Amino acid sequence: MTGRIVLDWGTSAFRAAFVAEDGRVLDRRAAALGIRFSQGTDFEAAMRREIGPWLDAHPDAPVYAAGMIGSRNGWIEVPYVACPADAPALAKGARRLKLGDGREMVFLPGVTCRRAGGVADVMRGEETQIAGLALETPATVILPGTHSKWVQVADGRIIEFQSFVTGELYDLLATHSFVAGARGRDGARFDRQAFDRGLAAGGSDDAATGGLLSRLFGVRARMLTREVVPEAIGDFLSGLLIGAEFREARAAGWLDGARPVTLAGSATLVERYRQAASAIGIDAAVADGDAGIRGALAIARHHEEVADGLC
Amino acid sequence: MTGRIVLDWGTSAFRAAFVAEDGRVLDRRAAALGIRFSQGTDFEAAMRREIGPWLDAHPDAPVYAAGMIGSRNGWIEVPYVACPADAPALAKGARRLKLGDGREMVFLPGVTCRRAGGVADVMRGEETQIAGLALETPATVILPGTHSKWVQVADGRIIEFQSFVTGELYDLLATHSFVAGARGRDGARFDRQAFDRGLAAGGSDDAATGGLLSRLFGVRARMLTREVVPEAIGDFLSGLLIGAEFREARAAGWLDGARPVTLAGSATLVERYRQAASAIGIDAAVADGDAGIRGALAIARHHEEVADGLC
Repeated sequence: MTGRIVLDWGTSAFRAAFVAEDGRVLDRRAAALGIRFSQGTDFEAAMRREIGPWLDAHPDAPVYAAGMIGSRNGWIEVPYVACPADAPALAKGARRLKLGDGREMVFLPGVTCRRAGGVADVMRGEETQIAGLALETPATVILPGTHSKWVQVADGRIIEFQSFVTGELYDLLATHSFVAGARGRDGARFDRQAFDRGLAAGGSDDAATGGLLSRLFGVRARMLTREVVPEAIGDFLSGLLIGAEFREARAAGWLDGARPVTLAGSATLVERYRQAASAIGIDAAVADGDAGIRGALAIARHHEEVADGLC
Repeated sequence: MTGRIVLDWGTSAFRAAFVAEDGRVLDRRAAALGIRFSQGTDFEAAMRREIGPWLDAHPDAPVYAAGMIGSRNGWIEVPYVACPADAPALAKGARRLKLGDGREMVFLPGVTCRRAGGVADVMRGEETQIAGLALETPATVILPGTHSKWVQVADGRIIEFQSFVTGELYDLLATHSFVAGARGRDGARFDRQAFDRGLAAGGSDDAATGGLLSRLFGVRARMLTREVVPEAIGDFLSGLLIGAEFREARAAGWLDGARPVTLAGSATLVERYRQAASAIGIDAAVADGDAGIRGALAIARHHEEVADGLC
């Protein structure tokens, strides 16, 4: 084997890494080719368009794919693995697919858990990032995104987690709603003060000032009364929603005890969440951007051990 | 004067009534001609297209217009009247406009208040419906809609109110989100059981089961696990959001004391809110659909008294 190819193929983005046997990342590709945009298309052809040269140069390099590509709307559907889940369990839940040229593709599973009240929760892709954090001591990992995840990890296992639709709600509101047009223009300066005001408004525990449904209307009211200028509404809204996420998570017990908090994900979002944590006195650690690649490799090695054992 | 024309001209709909001197509604018109769809157009021409025959037949009938037509994005901007506000105060805040043919148009004002924490809130159109309820005893009026209003009324005055973005969030989520396609097809049967399950999920006070951001993800999880069938997701989501609105309103103190609750607005929504109230032991009264017309007439009479006095 000359190396491995690791794909993080989600709803909105395709990211690929060619990784040497020793774990060094030798090459990378990224494209706005999420499964949302490629449904009904030929996933294998789409992959070849992006990383054809790697596939040609390394015919025996296996491809490990994490994320929504393994979902009902993806290439093949990989069943969720139940919590608690560690890297060996994720390896066991992976599904292999032999491509036409004989290459092996391995689709990594997502994870499901039942939370309080019996409600199911699911993740696909984040579990692979968590496997790359190699956390042995109990920790809370927060992965901001379209559907943010708060994850309890201990002994290298995902114990339990909870999802929040924060990112999706931000996109919907900023694109289509009463604050449409509020989204910061590309390259616009981040308005830290507006974000902090939003954090305070969204994170307040004072029920008399309302819950999220009412506080969201407050964004519009502040536009009408010009208490927040139009250019700052996007960052105010972002703060309000992230503040609301922290409020909900704290009420659900996520910040009880003294587990250290680690943030993983896109640098921009992680920085906003770090500020939100800091605002309530929590000093969160920040994972580097390659946790997903390391996690896929860790799961890959377990998968290959089992596969070798079967030969 | 042969009568009055009353317009309820909002973001998404235009409704008109021709009303006799004694208050009887003689004719009605309704069109999907909200100001959202007519921005940049000629509002006077749009009105003439809808009710030209009334205008021609009754050249001296004044036109009273309530709703978003009097907002910054409407025909003319009428400043908000501050709470507490009664019909005479609303009449005083109205703005007159003489049309080219000499006819008088009167635009009714919206209302603003400052709630706990100093946050501003606003309404435009609902105040006119409330004026038509003629409530002399203290009551809580709930007006469901794109931006639901909970209003405290006493002595015929609007004392205070709070807005919730429930309807807008439902539309956004059902149209564009992870549950898109979930909106019930036109004419689809209302799934009462799914709605009630949603009410229970959204209205629960158990913080461990999450807040709204987390419970909304639960809608998606229930789709994936098929705990709610696709055809029922729209009604489940509707129940979850309305349940969340009641939960927030109750936490903010709206159901403290024993004020009677009255519901006013579209029959379909009012029935859902009546069920939500009933689920927590509240027997809400339901206003008839002409409260807005009666309210406009009540305000009109005060307006005309003052106008006559000035002559």
